[in-house]
Amino acid sequence: MATLVLDTVPQPHVLTIAGSDSGGGAGIQADLKTIAAHGCYGSSVITALTAQNTLGVQAVHTVPPEFVVEQLKSLFDDDLKPLAIKFGMLAGESTIAALADYLSALPSRPFLVLDPVMVSTSGHHLLPDAATQTLVSRLLPLVDLVTPNIPEAQALAQYGEQVQSVQDMLKLAEAVRGLTNRAVLLKGGHLPLPRAQVAALATSEGLDVQWDEAGEEGVRVIDDFRQTLNLAATSPTVVVDILASPAGVRLFAGKHVSSSSTHGTGCTLSAALASQYAMENTAAGAEAEEGDKNLSPAGVRRAIEYVQSAIATAHPMGRGHGPLNHSHLTSRRALPPPTAHNPTPFVSHLIRSCPELWDEYIRHPFVVQLGEGTLPRKSFEHYISQDYHYLVHYARAHALGAYKSTTMEDIKAFSEIALHIARESTMHVAYCEQFGITKAKLLATPEAAACAAYARYIIDVGTQGDVLDVYVAVASCLIGYAEVGLWLKSRIATGETKLEGNPYARWVEDYSGEEFLGAVRRGIANLEARVAADPPSPERLARLTEVWTECVRLERNFWEMGLKVLW
Amino acid sequence: MATLVLDTVPQPHVLTIAGSDSGGGAGIQADLKTIAAHGCYGSSVITALTAQNTLGVQAVHTVPPEFVVEQLKSLFDDDLKPLAIKFGMLAGESTIAALADYLSALPSRPFLVLDPVMVSTSGHHLLPDAATQTLVSRLLPLVDLVTPNIPEAQALAQYGEQVQSVQDMLKLAEAVRGLTNRAVLLKGGHLPLPRAQVAALATSEGLDVQWDEAGEEGVRVIDDFRQTLNLAATSPTVVVDILASPAGVRLFAGKHVSSSSTHGTGCTLSAALASQYAMENTAAGAEAEEGDKNLSPAGVRRAIEYVQSAIATAHPMGRGHGPLNHSHLTSRRALPPPTAHNPTPFVSHLIRSCPELWDEYIRHPFVVQLGEGTLPRKSFEHYISQDYHYLVHYARAHALGAYKSTTMEDIKAFSEIALHIARESTMHVAYCEQFGITKAKLLATPEAAACAAYARYIIDVGTQGDVLDVYVAVASCLIGYAEVGLWLKSRIATGETKLEGNPYARWVEDYSGEEFLGAVRRGIANLEARVAADPPSPERLARLTEVWTECVRLERNFWEMGLKVLW
Repeated sequence: MATLVLDTVPQPHVLTIAGSDSGGGAGIQADLKTIAAHGCYGSSVITALTAQNTLGVQAVHTVPPEFVVEQLKSLFDDDLKPLAIKFGMLAGESTIAALADYLSALPSRPFLVLDPVMVSTSGHHLLPDAATQTLVSRLLPLVDLVTPNIPEAQALAQYGEQVQSVQDMLKLAEAVRGLTNRAVLLKGGHLPLPRAQVAALATSEGLDVQWDEAGEEGVRVIDDFRQTLNLAATSPTVVVDILASPAGVRLFAGKHVSSSSTHGTGCTLSAALASQYAMENTAAGAEAEEGDKNLSPAGVRRAIEYVQSAIATAHPMGRGHGPLNHSHLTSRRALPPPTAHNPTPFVSHLIRSCPELWDEYIRHPFVVQLGEGTLPRKSFEHYISQDYHYLVHYARAHALGAYKSTTMEDIKAFSEIALHIARESTMHVAYCEQFGITKAKLLATPEAAACAAYARYIIDVGTQGDVLDVYVAVASCLIGYAEVGLWLKSRIATGETKLEGNPYARWVEDYSGEEFLGAVRRGIANLEARVAADPPSPERLARLTEVWTECVRLERNFWEMGLKVLW
Repeated sequence: MATLVLDTVPQPHVLTIAGSDSGGGAGIQADLKTIAAHGCYGSSVITALTAQNTLGVQAVHTVPPEFVVEQLKSLFDDDLKPLAIKFGMLAGESTIAALADYLSALPSRPFLVLDPVMVSTSGHHLLPDAATQTLVSRLLPLVDLVTPNIPEAQALAQYGEQVQSVQDMLKLAEAVRGLTNRAVLLKGGHLPLPRAQVAALATSEGLDVQWDEAGEEGVRVIDDFRQTLNLAATSPTVVVDILASPAGVRLFAGKHVSSSSTHGTGCTLSAALASQYAMENTAAGAEAEEGDKNLSPAGVRRAIEYVQSAIATAHPMGRGHGPLNHSHLTSRRALPPPTAHNPTPFVSHLIRSCPELWDEYIRHPFVVQLGEGTLPRKSFEHYISQDYHYLVHYARAHALGAYKSTTMEDIKAFSEIALHIARESTMHVAYCEQFGITKAKLLATPEAAACAAYARYIIDVGTQGDVLDVYVAVASCLIGYAEVGLWLKSRIATGETKLEGNPYARWVEDYSGEEFLGAVRRGIANLEARVAADPPSPERLARLTEVWTECVRLERNFWEMGLKVLW
C-alpha cells in the first residue's frame, strides 16, 4: 500500500532580472511563465517597462537603478534567496554597474545565467552600445552561463571574423567562454546547417553531439508517416548550439523550427536554463561552492527542447512575431495534493460527485430500519444471503487487484483483504445460521439481479482497467459501509438507532467498530497516496468518478433489493 | 481508433492591470501565475512597481499614467484583445481616470473584474483615500464583477453599519452591487461563522448555498480518518462569500484555511475569476453583448476553491506572509502535443528512449543477411515457424485490446487487426510450405523460449494494464518491422539488399509494402492521438516506455533466436 504524505513541498526559487513586456510574450512575463512551467517559484526585479506587442517596442520607461537595487534587496533581506538568477534586458550602464556591485558583495551567489539582450527580435535596440563594455567588464566575470546568439557573441568578444561553419562557431564560443565565470551556450539559430554535414564533421573530429529525436539520419517509419500527412520528411538542416564549459565542448543539433511565433525566444531559453539548474540543485544549490555551479548537459538539452517545442506548439497571436506556448509541457491537474488542511481530496471529491445518490445509499430506509430494529426479518435474510454471494466476488476482486499489482506491497495489501474476507466468511455463515439460514441454503440461493449487477460490475471494471481501477471499484463498499455504521452509531444518542433488543445490533456494531474502521482508514490513505503520487488527469478522474458513482448507485440498489426482497 | 489532430490551440487571453510585486507573490506576478495555471494566456499592464517581500512593501515606484495607457494601447492596437481584464492595484486617481477613459471609449469591452486593492495584507496603503471616489464614480460602473472584502465593501458603499452576520453581509453586498455594471462577490474571510448557524439560516431563509466538500454537516468517515492523523474534524466554522448578481444571490460556504501563506490572496482570486470567465467564453466572449457578461456560479466556486487550496498547499516562504502555491493544480506533462513540426512526439520519444537496443533490433545480423539473401535456410525456417506461434498470441493480444476497450471504434480497430492476422495465417502457412514446413509440422513445433517470453509478455502486460498498455505492447512489433522493411528497401540502391535471387525477397517486399505500411501509419496516428487526448504523466510515460523497451529487447532476442536456431 502506498503511504500518505501531507507535507507541503517547496518550489525551487528562480529570479529574473529583466524588462517587462506588456504583451506578455517576452521579458519577465515570458520568464515567469517559463519558470512556472518548470514547477519553480518565480520572482522578478524589473529594470525597465516596455509598451510592446508582437510588432515591436512602442515605448520604454527605464526604472531608476536605485529602485532596481531596492527590489533586489527586498528579496535578499527576506531570505527569499533564489537558487538561480536569469538576467535579460538590463536597460543601461548604471543599472548593470549597480547589479554587479550588489551581487559581487553577496557572501555567496546563486547560479547566474545571462541572456545578453541587445536587440529585440523586432529590431529594437534594448541596450545602448556603450553599456556592452560594462556588461563584459563588470557582469560577465560573475556569470556562470552566458547565452548569446552569433551576432551577440561577436559583439561581446569583439570578434571580427566571419562565422559560417561549426568550426567557426567553436572558435567563437571559446572566445566568449574566457569572459565568463564558467560557460557559454552559443546559439546557432542564425546559421542552419545540413544535418549530414554536421554528422560527418562530428565523426571526423570526434565531436560530442546530442541529436534531436530524428538522430543523425532520421527514422524511416516516421518520415513515411510524415509524408502521408503531407509534411516534409525530417528536416535536412539543423540548428547547432554549442555549450563550451570547463568540462568540455558539446554540440546540440536540433531541427530548425520555421514559425512566426518567436517573440521572446531568447528570454525563454535563459529562463529555462536557470529553471533547469534550480531543479537539479533544489536544496544544495544555494550553498554550492562557487566552482560547482554547473548545469548538466542533459539540463541544457531539456531547456533547448523546451524552447523548440514552445515555438512549434504556439498558436499565432497578434499581427507580428507572436509569443511562444510556454505551457505546452503543463497539464491541468484535477485535484490538489493532500495536505493537513484537506487530507482526502480524492475521496472527498468522489463523495461530493454524486451527493443525492450518496445520500440515498447512506440513509436508505433499509439502513434506517436496521438501526431501529424495525426491518422485516425477510428483508434482512434476503440481504445477508445475497451478501454472502457478493463477498465471494468482493474477495475475488481483491485477488484480481493482487494479480494486477506490480509491487509486493500492493500484492500484500490486496491479498490480506482477500484472505480476511475468506476467513470471515465462516462468521458470516454462523451469523446467517442465527437467522435460520444454513450454509447449504446459502449456497443454493441464486444470485439476485442487484447482487450480480454490482459484483460482476466490480470484477469487469477491475479486469478492464489497471490497479487503480480495482482500488476505486472496491472503495464505495468499504467507505460507504463505514459511513453507514458511523451514522447509525451517531443516532444512538437520539434513540433513532437502538442496540438493545435490536436483532441487527451486531451488524451496526461491526460496521462502526475499530477493526472495520482500521481497514477503511488504510484504504482511504492508500487511495489518497496513490492519486497524489501520480495525479490523474481530468479525463482519468472523470472515468474513476464514473466507476465510483456507478458503485454507489449499485449499493443503493442492493439495499432496495433487500428491503423489497427483489430477485 | 482515435483521430490525430495537429492544429495548435489558442489560449484564452486574460490581461491584468495592476502593480508589480518583486517578491513574486502578489500583483501581476500572482496574476500571471494564476492565469497560466488556468491554461490561459496572460499579459500585463503595470501601474506601479513595488519593492516588496513577505514582510511588507518597502518602496513604490509609480508608473506615469500616460505610460500605463501606452501599454494598454500596445495590446489593443495589435489585436491582442483580452477576453477578460482583472484590475488590481491602480496606484492613484489619474491612473484610474486614464484607464476609465480608455476603456469606456472601446467599441466593446472585455469582462472586467475589479479587486479594489486599498490596503495590502501587511497593512500598506496602496491607494490614496481620495482615489476611492474616482474608483467608484469612474471605474465601478464599467465593471462586471467587483470582489471586495468586508472593509473594502464598506468603504466603496460608504456603509457605516456593523457587519456581523450573513444577513448583514447580504445587505452590504446589495449596496455594492448597485455601484457596478453587474455583480459583486463579497468576501467573508474577515468573518468566520459557525457551519451549523449558516446551515440553519440557509434552510429558514431559503438561501442558495454551495457547500465545500464537507457539506452542511461533514462526512463521518472522513472526520474519523482525520482524527487518526491527529487532525481536527472538519472545521466547524466556515467562510461565506456572497455573489450578488442580476441572476440572484448565492452563498459559497467553505472551511476557513488557517495559514501564514496568504500574501496575494485577493490578487489571486480576482485573476482566477477573470480566467474562469475567459475559459467559459473562449471564442464568443469578446463579442458578447454587454449584458451577457456573466461568470457562472460554478466558475465562481472553482475560483474560490482554487484560492483555498493554493493557500492550503503552499510551502512557507520568507519571514512574513508567504505566497500561495499557484501551481497546485498543474502537473508537468511528459511530452508536447503533436504538431505539424513534430507529429509523433510519443513514438519518437519511445524510439529515442533505447537507441542502442533499437539499433540492435533494426540492424540485427539476421536482418542484414535476410536482405542480402545470405541468411542460412535453417535460421529462417526456425524464425518463421516460431513467428507462426507468435502471431497466434499477437492476434490474441488484439482481441484482448478489443475486450479492454470502451468504444466501438476501438473494438473495431482491434478486432480488424485480430481478424487480419487470423486470415493472413493461411498465407503464412502457405509461405512456410514453400520452405518445406507443413502446417502439421508448424503446429507440432514447440514454442522457443524467446518466442514464449515475448508473446506471453505482451499478453501479461495487456491483461495487467489498460487499453493504452495493450496498444503500446503491440507497437514495437508493428513499428519496428516497418522500419526494418524500409531500411532493407533503402539498401537496394547500394546493392546491400538484393531482391533478385533472394529466397527472402517476399519478406522484404511485404514489410516495406503499402498494405503493411498503411496499418503502421494507422497505428502511429492512433497512439499519438490517444496520448495527446489524455497526456500521460511522467510516471505513466516511464511505465509505458519500460514496456516499449522490453518489447524492443525481446524483438532483438527473437532475431537472435532465429539466427542461432536457439530453443
